[in-house]
Amino acid sequence: EEVAKLLELKAKLNEDESPQAGSQKFTLKTPKGTRDFSPEQMAVRSSVLNKIISVFKKHGAETIDTPIFELKEVLTGKYGEDSKLIYDLKDQGGEILSLRYDLTVPFARYLAMNKITNIKRYHIAKVYRRDNPSIARGRYREFYQCDFDIAGAYDAMIPDAECVKIVYEILEILGMDQFVIKLNHRLLLDGLFEACGVPKDKFRSICSAVDKLDKSPWEEVKREMVEEKGLSESVADQIGEYVQLNGKEELVEKLLKDERLTKSKSAVEGLEAMKLILHYCDIYGTSDKVSFDLSLARGLDYYTGIIYEAVLVGGDASGDPESSVGSIAGGGRYDNLVGMFDSKHKQVPCVGVSIGVERIFAVLEAKYAATNTKIRTTDIQVYVATAQKNLVEERMKLCRQLWDEGFKVEHSYKKNPKLLAQLQHCEEYSIPLAVILGESEIQKGVVKLREVTSRAEVEVSRTQLPDEIRKRLQNYCLNGSA
Amino acid sequence: EEVAKLLELKAKLNEDESPQAGSQKFTLKTPKGTRDFSPEQMAVRSSVLNKIISVFKKHGAETIDTPIFELKEVLTGKYGEDSKLIYDLKDQGGEILSLRYDLTVPFARYLAMNKITNIKRYHIAKVYRRDNPSIARGRYREFYQCDFDIAGAYDAMIPDAECVKIVYEILEILGMDQFVIKLNHRLLLDGLFEACGVPKDKFRSICSAVDKLDKSPWEEVKREMVEEKGLSESVADQIGEYVQLNGKEELVEKLLKDERLTKSKSAVEGLEAMKLILHYCDIYGTSDKVSFDLSLARGLDYYTGIIYEAVLVGGDASGDPESSVGSIAGGGRYDNLVGMFDSKHKQVPCVGVSIGVERIFAVLEAKYAATNTKIRTTDIQVYVATAQKNLVEERMKLCRQLWDEGFKVEHSYKKNPKLLAQLQHCEEYSIPLAVILGESEIQKGVVKLREVTSRAEVEVSRTQLPDEIRKRLQNYCLNGSA
Repeated sequence: EEVAKLLELKAKLNEDESPQAGSQKFTLKTPKGTRDFSPEQMAVRSSVLNKIISVFKKHGAETIDTPIFELKEVLTGKYGEDSKLIYDLKDQGGEILSLRYDLTVPFARYLAMNKITNIKRYHIAKVYRRDNPSIARGRYREFYQCDFDIAGAYDAMIPDAECVKIVYEILEILGMDQFVIKLNHRLLLDGLFEACGVPKDKFRSICSAVDKLDKSPWEEVKREMVEEKGLSESVADQIGEYVQLNGKEELVEKLLKDERLTKSKSAVEGLEAMKLILHYCDIYGTSDKVSFDLSLARGLDYYTGIIYEAVLVGGDASGDPESSVGSIAGGGRYDNLVGMFDSKHKQVPCVGVSIGVERIFAVLEAKYAATNTKIRTTDIQVYVATAQKNLVEERMKLCRQLWDEGFKVEHSYKKNPKLLAQLQHCEEYSIPLAVILGESEIQKGVVKLREVTSRAEVEVSRTQLPDEIRKRLQNYCLNGSA
Repeated sequence: EEVAKLLELKAKLNEDESPQAGSQKFTLKTPKGTRDFSPEQMAVRSSVLNKIISVFKKHGAETIDTPIFELKEVLTGKYGEDSKLIYDLKDQGGEILSLRYDLTVPFARYLAMNKITNIKRYHIAKVYRRDNPSIARGRYREFYQCDFDIAGAYDAMIPDAECVKIVYEILEILGMDQFVIKLNHRLLLDGLFEACGVPKDKFRSICSAVDKLDKSPWEEVKREMVEEKGLSESVADQIGEYVQLNGKEELVEKLLKDERLTKSKSAVEGLEAMKLILHYCDIYGTSDKVSFDLSLARGLDYYTGIIYEAVLVGGDASGDPESSVGSIAGGGRYDNLVGMFDSKHKQVPCVGVSIGVERIFAVLEAKYAATNTKIRTTDIQVYVATAQKNLVEERMKLCRQLWDEGFKVEHSYKKNPKLLAQLQHCEEYSIPLAVILGESEIQKGVVKLREVTSRAEVEVSRTQLPDEIRKRLQNYCLNGSA
């Protein structure tokens, strides 16, 4: 009977296992354009994001979150041609939904829906674009955006100048201190096109041609304007005179005296705004990295005022002067977006900046790889090891004591692990201290405390152990050795 | 001509605004079963998650991330009946994708795909279920999961006991100290069904009936077993004798002497495992909250060993003894899931726990609402205010100085805000200190430093200001007053 029962049980177990057998007939992969993040990648990401968040908080930002998907209608008509890149959810009966394409449109929807007229918020979250992924160039279909925005009817350029300050502080704190923050103004661009005689219906397409000046020489951009966009050569040449200019206050002053430009009210308004923000940048101590750059156009239709973009220059943080990652942050003022969601079209003026964290992650990962930098993925301070067999309970008792003292501690999940394997684990995970227990130590009421890097060991009594560990960890933090 | 230009410009501006006019014809809302999180909600969430993460890190956990969607095939056949709740993406040409339903299946896919055989990781992220949302009961279609798992072939109950310790530490650190962690074992349940004469094909359905014992009295569960699931009354009564038991080691000892039960090899194995984990709980100092509970069954098919569930008891943290939130963490061992993704069915044994963070958030939000607790949503330490007009640049200079000293500082984005409005902002956001600048202060090279709560003001010289602020912030942190 016993045997029968066992056979029955075995049959049952096999039955339970049957769904596994042969169920895995597809290639194991993540969806196209997406990836998993390993503990090392996550460690780099958290360290970068924590630094960025510290700057946002230094400036009083709150944070919000919105769902990963929105009603499809919320996204409709906000992204122009790029709308084709939006991920839709299947119609499973109910609402028609799409994955968010950026964080700005959900933010505007949030403000309008909750009738919020003032907020300073950051939002760090993933967005989704069915783009052609270019893994080599670090372009994915799922990626982080990291946005800071100030919403509210305030006075000219005060929040705008603080956004510049925030970009400045973030790039400094990340150690990427070779950068330029380019500034321009939508009204100036519009005014300049007007003054040069561009037909109004071509403003946007000429704007997007100008936007390519950071990658292409003027001759190529001019050819696009004339041959593809049908501008006369003389108009293109006039535009060329302006958009190749960059400088500081003195350039603003010069342009304010330009007869052609100052015929456009819009251009003058833009120039006055530039003058003010450059003055504020001076006060905020960001002028050394700021450049008034007439070639900066930025693609998005919804900008209405100041636009900015930070680019890494020269030898970038990866140590490789040739690996130009280009734009690493950008943004601008968009005063009309929230009104698109309000039934009475009530506007909430906004200005904001998006930090290109994916590029920053890529630059840092390349740098760490090039310099063979080891990245710690855990915070463990003390590893509890045993030198002989049958001491697992002694290890557990000591771990408990150290956890209860607040230390970050781990030990092997094997009953009788080899001492060498335990010590190798410490080195692999860069754990600063190991406590080694053997039978003789247990009898004497002591432990061996080992500095993992130097491999130096001292005997410490059990009662003194917590203080001794604290002392050594303090040294370790100060000098990098326990 | 000037007028014509202006009219033209005006026409253009109106044109630019046209997409807004009348474009918003739908109700502004988030998708069914989802919601936005306000700064207050986010503050509660980050504070809870940071505490939980600190416990995970104390035990050496790394973190990983996986995409929000998976190939549909990855999720197929993992959730039984609940598969109908999976969100599918629209087929836009390319792979067929679904939003993740939990974090465990993506974790198993990650391990198999990367051939990882050992890892201790946590993963906090949102998951998606097309469930019938019950906002009143805090059930949403988009919600956080917060998982900790130990993967690897280790010795019996060592990682399992640490999971219990982690749940224990998390609930303590969150101040939810009235809880019980119920433990049971899948092999014991199977063995007990076997010993009582339940037909094998009814194990799972009887198991799910037992699972209801935390909400329904035995009489009702028995009725379900007999009337709905076709068990004979005598078999049900036998089951009833066992599943209403709970206790500690002494119950294990008693059951190990039970003649009916010990005929099942599976039951004996389960009991021996329970004995070991209870012993380890003793060593880890968690026994006072641990209960061996034979009614604990847990729904998921993939558990193969220990199962556990933490429940809040008595007066819960909300201060309302009647608001029973029930299960607040749960998990167990699942040794066969990773093998389902491996082409050679190579197993990676896993044990893990999921912290019910959404319930924890709900309990804390209810508690804060009931006690009128004010939640700070920013970290601002100093607000820079001006007492007269035309001092915005003076404010900006001082902000810059304080930012550069590392303080968290903000000021009004209005040029000439009213002093009262500025001070009200400080009170609204619980900012501890305000620095007030007026013309006379500027001339004398001093500022007024104001403690916002007490409204006490002192005059401080500009050079002494940073030290004075530091001193007061230290007091503020220690005593809650600046």
